[in-house]
Amino acid sequence: MGRVTNPPEQLAEAVARIRPLDEGAMRAARDRQAELTKPAGSLGLLEETSIRLAGIHGSCPPPYPEELVVAVFAADHGVVASGVTPWPQDVTSVMVENFRAGGAAVNVLAAEAGGSVVVVDIGVASEVEEDDVVWSRSVRRGTADLAAGPAMTREETVRAIGTGIRVADELVDRGYDVVATGDMGIGNTTASACLIAHLTGRGAAAATGRGTGVDDAMLAHKTAIVAGAVARLAPDADPVDVLAEVGGLEHAGLVGLVLGAAARGVPVLLDGVVSGAAALVVQRLAPAAVDRCLAGHRSAENGHALALEHLGLRPLLDLDLRLGEGSGAALAFPLVRAAAAVLRDMATFAEAGINR
Amino acid sequence: MGRVTNPPEQLAEAVARIRPLDEGAMRAARDRQAELTKPAGSLGLLEETSIRLAGIHGSCPPPYPEELVVAVFAADHGVVASGVTPWPQDVTSVMVENFRAGGAAVNVLAAEAGGSVVVVDIGVASEVEEDDVVWSRSVRRGTADLAAGPAMTREETVRAIGTGIRVADELVDRGYDVVATGDMGIGNTTASACLIAHLTGRGAAAATGRGTGVDDAMLAHKTAIVAGAVARLAPDADPVDVLAEVGGLEHAGLVGLVLGAAARGVPVLLDGVVSGAAALVVQRLAPAAVDRCLAGHRSAENGHALALEHLGLRPLLDLDLRLGEGSGAALAFPLVRAAAAVLRDMATFAEAGINR
Repeated sequence: MGRVTNPPEQLAEAVARIRPLDEGAMRAARDRQAELTKPAGSLGLLEETSIRLAGIHGSCPPPYPEELVVAVFAADHGVVASGVTPWPQDVTSVMVENFRAGGAAVNVLAAEAGGSVVVVDIGVASEVEEDDVVWSRSVRRGTADLAAGPAMTREETVRAIGTGIRVADELVDRGYDVVATGDMGIGNTTASACLIAHLTGRGAAAATGRGTGVDDAMLAHKTAIVAGAVARLAPDADPVDVLAEVGGLEHAGLVGLVLGAAARGVPVLLDGVVSGAAALVVQRLAPAAVDRCLAGHRSAENGHALALEHLGLRPLLDLDLRLGEGSGAALAFPLVRAAAAVLRDMATFAEAGINR
Repeated sequence: MGRVTNPPEQLAEAVARIRPLDEGAMRAARDRQAELTKPAGSLGLLEETSIRLAGIHGSCPPPYPEELVVAVFAADHGVVASGVTPWPQDVTSVMVENFRAGGAAVNVLAAEAGGSVVVVDIGVASEVEEDDVVWSRSVRRGTADLAAGPAMTREETVRAIGTGIRVADELVDRGYDVVATGDMGIGNTTASACLIAHLTGRGAAAATGRGTGVDDAMLAHKTAIVAGAVARLAPDADPVDVLAEVGGLEHAGLVGLVLGAAARGVPVLLDGVVSGAAALVVQRLAPAAVDRCLAGHRSAENGHALALEHLGLRPLLDLDLRLGEGSGAALAFPLVRAAAAVLRDMATFAEAGINR
């Protein structure tokens, strides 16, 4: 479990430890890209990714990413009682068992990428057993219905963020050198839409999407619920209060995960709309942490493109994924590795005897 | 070298052996995707890719792709004498040596994907040594200047296509189960633009791009050369004659490679604009072969998006790559593997005990 401090201190400490990207290493990476045997810039976003990795690690070439872990934060949402999804709430816990058994998309895609999956029960409504794959870190058994009032208290929110920070610490201590964000929670695209609507300022209609299997009537209802919840927030509300009012426990856990990994100097690979919503909270708490993130993909879910734009992150993949779990982040990992490999392994013009 | 027949027969035989996709296997793959523990369609293009793989192989799940080879066809272009690129012609042969030494982007990216690189000298202007990596299959030492007249004869073109077919046969015989297209040839985006302008009917201005390092003045000049060359082609010209008039030897080789791999039932992973231009010729010769292709990426080069649209192929990656060599195809290979792995390895709803 690492060092245990009281949660507000832990948040402040993590934020204080996040350094800006290393400009010198990024300059060296940019210079090296221009020396490699290809036209300058011809590897597009792969070059940008390699430069960001250099900035994160403070070295050029940056270390080759060896060990990916996808940390799937699972939680339930009181707002499902308000009819925002056709899926029953207990699918969350059933999917946790599916992750444990290795049968879900994120298991298959993480394995393909040579990576591991850890599931963090940060607020599943029912009891979940603990083992090496599923970590019991429940802060409360699901949020309250955000349509009716605050999803959780500020204290619970801070505690969930602290839990995410500690999970990041433990994963880095175990040797993982890239941390990917994942999520599972029936109803969590509604909470994500609230966070995105408020934090980007783009409003409920632009930020709300169909999640998984929402028809036109349900989408209108879901959008109205998002609009109503967001209307309770003052424009300048504290980001932790925003998270408490309209977020989810997995969002809070992911905020902590990103802050914790950034504080430890490990790159974060973001998944889809739930991760993007959490990253918007991170951006308000510690903008430098977002510089230490790579966007794995752009989801088909409406609000995700808005979130990425506001974060200033360009996604590596754009495959119309809308699954969550960390699936898109796992799929993007080979591209992160490839970016590092190019910088480390390609010949320079001088080595190849090419005069320019 | 496999069976040697005279080239026109070989082309006709390859075309005759290309079967349409297996509808039954594709239906089975679609049905299985709907049974896997995720919302239907939530893996987007990855699902489509898995269904196409099932159709190519005629089985569900399709075999997991084990052995990637990137076949880089290298050739020179007489049109460089007309000032369409800032790079000197001998960069083609220098890059062939860079491929041999393992220092180019495609070497690094193929290695990352667990794959191999084979370079086929199908028309480099200078002498190139043969070894296991670089295969000497020169049809002629570079094309004539397409700005002034036909780039090559019909007989040479047919011979180069036949060479590509034989290369595909040899690679499949060696056990490679995914064949990626690659190219190297200073000046080859000009020939590609001619092919794309004519075969999509979109004209020179839309099809011509900056290649690698072309400024505004050179782009205008390059576009004028493309327009002039395309003006020599009758709208209903035979596709082999089109290739002879304005194409390159590597385009012809890649046409053969795609046809040969399709005839052998092996999926083809297409790289960027040069491969896309060759695939447009394939589409005219054997439309069913295009169904057996996967588009690795969409290049930043103008004409590539037009080519993909005309081919009806959606790219797996969109990273603003503009390098060629097969780099984008190699980068996309992990996604092809992931698509197959999902279909093979994910649990079904029934297995996970989820009632829908």
